[in-house]
Amino acid sequence: MRTITWDYTHQQVRMIDQRLLPGEFQEVSFTSYEQVAEAIQQMVVRGAPAIGASAAFGMALAANASTTSDITVFKDEMIKAGEVLQAARPTAVNLAWAITRMLQVIEGSETADTVGLRAAMLEEAQQIADQDVQINQQMAIHGANLMGENETVIHHCNTGALATVDWGTALGVIRMAHEQGKNPHVLVDETRPRLQGARLTAWELEQYQVSYEIITDNAAGFFLSSGKVDRVLVGADRVAANGDVANKIGTYMLALAARDNQVPFFAVVPTSTVDLSLGEGKQIPIEQREPGEVLGIQFLGKRASPETARARNPAFDITPHRLISGIITENGVVYPPYERNLRQTVQSGRS
Amino acid sequence: MRTITWDYTHQQVRMIDQRLLPGEFQEVSFTSYEQVAEAIQQMVVRGAPAIGASAAFGMALAANASTTSDITVFKDEMIKAGEVLQAARPTAVNLAWAITRMLQVIEGSETADTVGLRAAMLEEAQQIADQDVQINQQMAIHGANLMGENETVIHHCNTGALATVDWGTALGVIRMAHEQGKNPHVLVDETRPRLQGARLTAWELEQYQVSYEIITDNAAGFFLSSGKVDRVLVGADRVAANGDVANKIGTYMLALAARDNQVPFFAVVPTSTVDLSLGEGKQIPIEQREPGEVLGIQFLGKRASPETARARNPAFDITPHRLISGIITENGVVYPPYERNLRQTVQSGRS
Repeated sequence: MRTITWDYTHQQVRMIDQRLLPGEFQEVSFTSYEQVAEAIQQMVVRGAPAIGASAAFGMALAANASTTSDITVFKDEMIKAGEVLQAARPTAVNLAWAITRMLQVIEGSETADTVGLRAAMLEEAQQIADQDVQINQQMAIHGANLMGENETVIHHCNTGALATVDWGTALGVIRMAHEQGKNPHVLVDETRPRLQGARLTAWELEQYQVSYEIITDNAAGFFLSSGKVDRVLVGADRVAANGDVANKIGTYMLALAARDNQVPFFAVVPTSTVDLSLGEGKQIPIEQREPGEVLGIQFLGKRASPETARARNPAFDITPHRLISGIITENGVVYPPYERNLRQTVQSGRS
Repeated sequence: MRTITWDYTHQQVRMIDQRLLPGEFQEVSFTSYEQVAEAIQQMVVRGAPAIGASAAFGMALAANASTTSDITVFKDEMIKAGEVLQAARPTAVNLAWAITRMLQVIEGSETADTVGLRAAMLEEAQQIADQDVQINQQMAIHGANLMGENETVIHHCNTGALATVDWGTALGVIRMAHEQGKNPHVLVDETRPRLQGARLTAWELEQYQVSYEIITDNAAGFFLSSGKVDRVLVGADRVAANGDVANKIGTYMLALAARDNQVPFFAVVPTSTVDLSLGEGKQIPIEQREPGEVLGIQFLGKRASPETARARNPAFDITPHRLISGIITENGVVYPPYERNLRQTVQSGRS
C-alpha cells in the first residue's frame, strides 16, 4: 500500500488522507494540480519526500489538463502550476526539487509535441515516486547497519511510509532493524501540535508490530538522561550545505538533550532533501502555521486555552550541524565535517 | 481570591477546582483529610506550595475529626493522616515540609490537651497559608528587580496564584514586573500532558492583563534561538542541596535550549521547596502518572493515538544545576556555587 499512487484508469492521483488516521483509513483522489496544492497545504499529505512526489503528480495533472499544442504556452502553464504547488508549503525543499525535475522534462525534450510531453511528464512523476521507495530502502539498510540489538530509539514526528511514497526515512531504518530481527523499541514523541507521532508513527508501528510507547515531546530529556536510550532518529525537511537540519518543531531541543547525554543523534535524509544552494540553516524559510493548531487542544473534553488566547506556531526549527552525529543518505552515512562530506556524498549520487 | 481557604463557618477547606479552568470557575470543599489527599492526587489542586498548604489544612481536618482526648492516640492519628497525605504525590517536598510543620505543633506543645492542640494545628495551617503569600511576594520583588523593560519571558507549567495560596512563584515575578510597569511579554509553554500552561497560566495572565502567546513546549528552542527571548522563569517541586531542580516535565530540555543560546534561566523557589537532605537531583523521586494523560489527547475530535497504544508519563524531570543561572528565594537570589550558597540562604531564613 503506497501513500501516493497514480490511478491510470481515472487519470488522477490518489492519497491516504493522513488527517483521519489512525481512526479512519480513507483514500482521496485529486484531478487537478490546484487540489493537490491544497491537499499539501492542508496536510492531507505531509512529509518532505511525500509532498515532493505529490507535487510531481500535481505537475502531471497540470500537463494532462492542458489543451494547448503550443509548446511555449504549455511551458508557461507548467511553470505557473509549479509556482502554485511550490507555494503550498515553504520549508521542505523536496517540493522545489520535484517541480524542477518535472520542468526539466520539458527543457530536456527534443520534441515540441505537447501530447508526447504530457506522457513524458507522467512517466517522470511515476519515476520520482518509484525512486523514492528504492532510495528509502537504501537509507534503511545504511541506517539499520549502525544499530545493535534491542536498542531503544527516540523518534520525532512521522517519517514512515506515510511521510514518503513508501517505506520511510528514519522510521524506515527502524522498520529495517525490526525486519533484521534486531528488536528495536521506540519511544514515540507525540509531536505537538499536529500529533504526527501519536497518530501516524504509532499507527505505522502497530502495522509493523514494532514495540513502542508514546511520550510527550517534553519528556524526551527525562528518558535521554536515564541512560536507557541508545539513539535518536529523525527525518528532515531541508538540509543546508553545512549540515544544519530543518525538521519538525522540537527537533532542536531533542538534539540538545541527546548531545547532553552523549546519545547518538542521526538524521535520515534522501539527497533530494539536501539544498546545497543554502550555506547554513538560518537561510531556510520556516513555515508559520495557524495558531488554531496550538489553541485547539482540549482538556477533559473542552478547549484548553482561554477563548481570547493567542498563539505562535512555527512548524519547523533548525538543528545546528554540531549536534548531529551523522546524516544517513541513500549514498551512505555522512559524518562531520559536513561542509565537505555532505556535498561529496550528494554529488556522488548525482554524477 | 485565594486558591485555598479555610471556611471557619463549616470547618472545611475550600479550593478552586483547577481541572475545570479556564472554562469553568468552581470551588470545592473538603471535610476530611482523605478527601484532601485525593484532591491532591487527582490534581484538583497542584503546584508545590499549594499542595503544601493543602496538606496543612488536611492535617487540620484530621485533627478536627479526632475525638480522642488521649494525646498518644491523637499523635498516632495525626502521623497516620500525614502518611496518607504524603503518599498523594511523591515529588514536591512541600508536602513533607508542611506535614512536618504540623506534627511539630504536637511535638512542641507543652500541653496534653487535645482540644487545644486541634486549635493550635488549625492556626498553624492558617499561618503556613498566610506565610506562603508573603514569601511569594518577597520572591516576586527579588525576581522583578532582575528584569528590564519589555522583556520576553518563556514560562513553563503554571506557577501562579493557582500553584500557591496566592500570588505565585515564577509567574508572581512576571506579575510583579507587570505591576511595576515593565511590560513583560510571556511565551507560555502549553505544558503537556495536563496543559497547565495553556489552561491555568493563560487564564491567570488574562486576569492580570499581561501580554502573552501560547506555544507548544517543543517550540521553545525555536524562540530561544531567534534571539528574541530575554529570560526563562520556572518554578520547582524540589531542589537538592547542590541546586539540581526537579520541576514539571520539560524543564530540563527548556534549560538546555536556554543555555545553548545564553538566555538566563532562573528557578523561583520558596525555601520550603529546598530539600537539603538530598545531595543531588537524581535522589529526588519522580512521579510516574497514568498513561491516559498522554494517550487521551484528541485530534479533530477523535482520540489521536491507536486504541492499543501504550505510553510513559513521567510528571517531572531534573534540571542539573549547571544549567541554572540563579535560584530566586524569599531570602534573596542564590547564584553558583549552589553547594555552598543555597544552604547559606536557606538557613539564613530559618535562623
